[in-house]
Amino acid sequence: MIKELNIVKIGGNILNTPALLKQYLKDFSQLKGYKILVHGGGKKANEVCHQMNIIPKMKEGRRITDEATLEIVTMVYAGLINKKIVSQLQALNCKTIGLSGADGNVIYATKRPVVEIDYGFAGDIQTINKELIIKLLNQKLSLAFCSITHNGKGQLLNTNADTIATQLAIVLADDYEIKLQFQFGQKGVLKDANNANSFFENLSQKQYQAHKKTGIINEGMVPKLDNAFQAKHAGVQQINIGETKIV
Amino acid sequence: MIKELNIVKIGGNILNTPALLKQYLKDFSQLKGYKILVHGGGKKANEVCHQMNIIPKMKEGRRITDEATLEIVTMVYAGLINKKIVSQLQALNCKTIGLSGADGNVIYATKRPVVEIDYGFAGDIQTINKELIIKLLNQKLSLAFCSITHNGKGQLLNTNADTIATQLAIVLADDYEIKLQFQFGQKGVLKDANNANSFFENLSQKQYQAHKKTGIINEGMVPKLDNAFQAKHAGVQQINIGETKIV
Repeated sequence: MIKELNIVKIGGNILNTPALLKQYLKDFSQLKGYKILVHGGGKKANEVCHQMNIIPKMKEGRRITDEATLEIVTMVYAGLINKKIVSQLQALNCKTIGLSGADGNVIYATKRPVVEIDYGFAGDIQTINKELIIKLLNQKLSLAFCSITHNGKGQLLNTNADTIATQLAIVLADDYEIKLQFQFGQKGVLKDANNANSFFENLSQKQYQAHKKTGIINEGMVPKLDNAFQAKHAGVQQINIGETKIV
Repeated sequence: MIKELNIVKIGGNILNTPALLKQYLKDFSQLKGYKILVHGGGKKANEVCHQMNIIPKMKEGRRITDEATLEIVTMVYAGLINKKIVSQLQALNCKTIGLSGADGNVIYATKRPVVEIDYGFAGDIQTINKELIIKLLNQKLSLAFCSITHNGKGQLLNTNADTIATQLAIVLADDYEIKLQFQFGQKGVLKDANNANSFFENLSQKQYQAHKKTGIINEGMVPKLDNAFQAKHAGVQQINIGETKIV
């Protein structure tokens, strides 16, 4: 019998709203069997940037990670948010270890090549060390990944958390029956941005392409859906964006 | 045959001097067998405090950890410094996982009671989950502990790194032959603060007490030596402060 593995990415307003985070962590802690949580923390990173008089630099929704920004995202994602999440999960009797991609070399990445835009210390995932992940899961540990990776040469890199969740799901799909969820504090992929209850129950790639053309699905949801369909094509068994099922 | 476990605390100027850190990490990576590194990062935490317009508060050499300071030490110790160390160790082929006390509940602490001074979110160690530590070491992983613990109820706490190294050594002394080292960027416990080569080769508790009376040993070295002799009495087999042997 193939074992079930839940991979839950949490982001958006969840990480910045203590009551919401508490609810999502409670839901996560109650999932049965093997489980992995993945998080970023962009909003808190922006706050810390401002407190340190550093202006966050973004390009098409993606962060430009210069050296000072890399220090901040490492502090915020791997330190503050990861350890808060781990300690809160422990309080819910969910035995969890927090990881960056550098820990045990679980996620090896390379610095994104400069084509048109120099994203700085942004990491593109190359290899996931699934043996260690499986060993840790077999110790009855849940894992909480922050969105920091490394290049194997001592350089930390900033990597998109949606992409980490997706790549973990793809790599582990041979070993587990995967349920991949992207939670971002909304009910699902919305049909109408002004109506929080108007989410799609199901979404196929054809429908997604059509709604992207008309602009109903746009901006921040696009990379999330691209990740979701990439996972789908790679054989990930069950994928949800909030309550929207990817079919 | 009892296995050897090296526990190396690094602190002082080492963490703030990249070339020095590199050398100490290289030395650590070349140690044979099981190994644990422990670090704090007070100087970097003070820097970040200043950058965020927060004045670090100290009392008798110990930090007063209010809520804002707790966020900063969590970011700096568990995030920035821990992940830098882990990624540099990985580059030295030393497979390492970074941990706070919250991860897998490895170090459970309680908030220090207010007697004369309110140290804020300072954690006094109550329990070390040695089963998980041994399991991880048996996976041929080295461990890098930062000096953040938790109270099991979702509250992170700031705990002295020397104390963490000492308590780890004491708890694991039944399972391993322990070599406990405190490295702080000096050759050892100095006989003359103005002569970096004037270190004691050996130091017994009697000698320590005598030199403390005369003031030859003072200030920052006192809690370190108190920790060292506590470990000695608890059966830790080999203890060094720099090159000074505790006898």
